[in-house]
Amino acid sequence: MIFFKNIDEKKPFARIEDLYKEALIAKQRNIEAICISSYSKKNGVNSRFVNLKIVDDDKFFFFTNYESEKAYEFNENNQISAVLYWNQTNTQIRMKSHIIKTSNEFNQNYFMKRTKEKNALAISSKQSKKIDSFQSVKKNFFDVMQSDDLTICPEYWGGYCFSPFYIEFWTGDKYRLNRREVFELCEGKWKKYFLQP
Amino acid sequence: MIFFKNIDEKKPFARIEDLYKEALIAKQRNIEAICISSYSKKNGVNSRFVNLKIVDDDKFFFFTNYESEKAYEFNENNQISAVLYWNQTNTQIRMKSHIIKTSNEFNQNYFMKRTKEKNALAISSKQSKKIDSFQSVKKNFFDVMQSDDLTICPEYWGGYCFSPFYIEFWTGDKYRLNRREVFELCEGKWKKYFLQP
Repeated sequence: MIFFKNIDEKKPFARIEDLYKEALIAKQRNIEAICISSYSKKNGVNSRFVNLKIVDDDKFFFFTNYESEKAYEFNENNQISAVLYWNQTNTQIRMKSHIIKTSNEFNQNYFMKRTKEKNALAISSKQSKKIDSFQSVKKNFFDVMQSDDLTICPEYWGGYCFSPFYIEFWTGDKYRLNRREVFELCEGKWKKYFLQP
Repeated sequence: MIFFKNIDEKKPFARIEDLYKEALIAKQRNIEAICISSYSKKNGVNSRFVNLKIVDDDKFFFFTNYESEKAYEFNENNQISAVLYWNQTNTQIRMKSHIIKTSNEFNQNYFMKRTKEKNALAISSKQSKKIDSFQSVKKNFFDVMQSDDLTICPEYWGGYCFSPFYIEFWTGDKYRLNRREVFELCEGKWKKYFLQP
């Protein structure tokens, strides 16, 4: 689930919320999955799905480990792409943005409201670091589940926030006559145009 | 549908075919959708879903317009990421690769076997170029449907081929104890290791 709030009907984010509701009604699985891509000299172009948790006005939020490879990549180059694809309604939303970390206070507040299982995983995992086996991953998790205070957010865990400056709404159609509608932020105003399929 | 052929049981591509079959049995919608990301100085990090059509041994194929923005981006920087995500089975396959165009002969042969509707769209669309309305897109398509020989592949349309050097199999699990298994090509050999979730 994605939590939408403070959505302005005059901005393209209202359209994202409408399409989200359509996908929800169509019983889209893993509706919060969003493909985030980044670029660094060491890792090149790199992509992964994360869970989009909140859309607040024009700001999108997800949470991760600040020592992961993606955090390293965002630090080197803060321009990302973000793509939602809801196959149940054949809707793709392509976005480009810059990305920043959320504050410690924001992270701590958010962390406290999560389940202890999610927090145990956040605390126990050195995300994207190599490990000898999947059994070791499980052992670390169950050790932390038993021993730690699971409400204190570790410094290496928190949110990222991005506000898209480019949004393309892509809707699949018959004969591949796909509808592609772009909103681009130019000097503070959203400019709209169509692209050929 | 993705067409697999010449798959070597000793390479990680056999695993991709197995996971594909599982997703097919689970009735995954738009199973061929793959998120391709690229980087160029002008456009930054940019991503879009395309249809993965063929996996032949270690080579992956999709088709597009050679004058599209992504073609421009591949030309500037031929390193891409490619991600399959089958939400029906909660499987993600993250890949990194270099990408090249397929030959004119390969493109012409492939084009001849396609439906006239697909070819009319390929001929009529100046992909990713701006257009005044979606109505104009439809008009161009129906004009081409009536007038042209729809078996001759235009020079601006064809395939791209990539052979991944990095493949991560991600399987979602309870408590987010996701299983992450990596295969990386090092001096011609596939090295395998696990990543923390």
